[in-house]
Amino acid sequence: MGQVLRHEVLSVLLENSANFLSGEEISKRVGVSRAAIWKHIKELRNEGYEIEAKPRKGYRLIYRPDRVATEEIQNELSTKLFGQQIRYEPVAKSTQILAHQWARAGAPEGSLVIADEQQAGKGRLGRVWYSPPKTGIWMSLILRPPIPIQQASHLTLLASVGVSSAIINQTNLPIKIKWPNDLLLQGKKICGILTELRGDQDKIEYIVLGMGINVNQQSDHFPSELKEVATSLAVQGKQSYSRASLIAEVMKELEYYYLLYLEQGFEPIRNRWESLSDLIGKKITAKTPQAKVVGVAESLSSDGSLMVRSGKELITIYSADIDKE
Amino acid sequence: MGQVLRHEVLSVLLENSANFLSGEEISKRVGVSRAAIWKHIKELRNEGYEIEAKPRKGYRLIYRPDRVATEEIQNELSTKLFGQQIRYEPVAKSTQILAHQWARAGAPEGSLVIADEQQAGKGRLGRVWYSPPKTGIWMSLILRPPIPIQQASHLTLLASVGVSSAIINQTNLPIKIKWPNDLLLQGKKICGILTELRGDQDKIEYIVLGMGINVNQQSDHFPSELKEVATSLAVQGKQSYSRASLIAEVMKELEYYYLLYLEQGFEPIRNRWESLSDLIGKKITAKTPQAKVVGVAESLSSDGSLMVRSGKELITIYSADIDKE
Repeated sequence: MGQVLRHEVLSVLLENSANFLSGEEISKRVGVSRAAIWKHIKELRNEGYEIEAKPRKGYRLIYRPDRVATEEIQNELSTKLFGQQIRYEPVAKSTQILAHQWARAGAPEGSLVIADEQQAGKGRLGRVWYSPPKTGIWMSLILRPPIPIQQASHLTLLASVGVSSAIINQTNLPIKIKWPNDLLLQGKKICGILTELRGDQDKIEYIVLGMGINVNQQSDHFPSELKEVATSLAVQGKQSYSRASLIAEVMKELEYYYLLYLEQGFEPIRNRWESLSDLIGKKITAKTPQAKVVGVAESLSSDGSLMVRSGKELITIYSADIDKE
Repeated sequence: MGQVLRHEVLSVLLENSANFLSGEEISKRVGVSRAAIWKHIKELRNEGYEIEAKPRKGYRLIYRPDRVATEEIQNELSTKLFGQQIRYEPVAKSTQILAHQWARAGAPEGSLVIADEQQAGKGRLGRVWYSPPKTGIWMSLILRPPIPIQQASHLTLLASVGVSSAIINQTNLPIKIKWPNDLLLQGKKICGILTELRGDQDKIEYIVLGMGINVNQQSDHFPSELKEVATSLAVQGKQSYSRASLIAEVMKELEYYYLLYLEQGFEPIRNRWESLSDLIGKKITAKTPQAKVVGVAESLSSDGSLMVRSGKELITIYSADIDKE
């Protein structure tokens, strides 16, 4: 209850950050006593918010720490569906696990799980995703697309398109997509996407779209085994970015491409993906669970697999680690 | 513990049902006192087993009730993988739910959940599957095929081939497959198959293959709303069948086609499916979630979808209720 009221006090301050608001006014809007308001202001300051207090004028928010809690994001959200329901955890084992539980319990499409820190973040192929506190975006979005399971990988590719577009809009950094859905900056990983799903022969029950974005890490934040392969927006852009604003932008772009996909099918997604990827037409090596394929990436097929020309053969790649020659 | 010992007593009796075994001999093999053996014999009689007892000769099993408990099935099992781990429940809400839990907890491939009765059996498209006690086979098999999610429907079709073959082997009844995987006798449903899965962009984590087979129901066992559309092996074959033997045969046939599929791919499965189905070449109506398609069923595509020729168009059907004209 105290948590809920503190969020309301913060929301009132966020909406009015250009002006001072009297304690009486805040007390009226939130519906608790002025003494309680004062207690919540103190707690917000402990969380890192700077709140100016002037006699006879009241309170004004002058600095927000870079938090990814619900009220910070909802303040900037422009979507109809995605992110309208948020579950925020300061520390979670993995947002994927929480999102699966929520989806099975009936969470509506667009529900979003965010953690400030993950203790066992999940990456592709059973790998761990390094998810330290206060620096990155670790979140999982629940989708319920009315499509057959054969086309689930459309959503994987759509996700990489939506997240890339959002990052480019906010940072102007030259993001590239590596098949199927790693996002790279200067050849290093800036974002990983994990698409997990549950369904049956007739339909997808739900998809959990996991996204890990390295935002404000400094280069010495990365463990030594990741330094060569991972980077952050802050390292590349030489500035820090608001994680809450970026989450809101990701929701906007994902919703845009999702609705476009439901209306027009995979073709516009494929076109956008191909323009954001630097793979098509390049010579690549694909390490699949079965074999190593060397050839030229020719196209994305209609089910989202990668078609690779190797000599006279055209090989369909469903799952692989890809390296450009 | 009593349960486990009773199963051991039963196993010893099953293995030696041609001969009498002295109480002393049984007691030695199971490792408990002769008084305890006598107690278990009484309990087995309460469960419906008829056990002859003769002075100075001992005990002999002369009648087995039609049970689907673990020891009844393992006694007849000839597989290497499928059904080697069995979880049996006299009453379950749904074997699918139990199998999902077991799969997430790490159950090995081939693990099988069986219930004598389901209180909320699951069918396709969210429908209920009527699962009364003592008459049918309600079971869920856990698979972990190393294939991409785009090909998951291969397993749906494989399941219908394996179950049909097993029923034909045991009963000689003329089973037909209705796309994708209902099994029919004289146009009425004898078996439904529900394929549920969990996976990610790189692989299938697991598939739960749910099977409901109407075995020994008499025609007046079916609720009135099912009488027109459902039937049982007993009604059609005019005799009752051992459910445990049929389960063992289903495991054998499913394992055979599964290993064939992993070795040779979808082609042999498709051929067998087409010979067991009476759909290809027929005029059909397919009610999909989006539309009603009328046309001629032309073939199964390589991803398991049904290709229907409607005028000049060739339409891909992923999910539908199919009726022949």
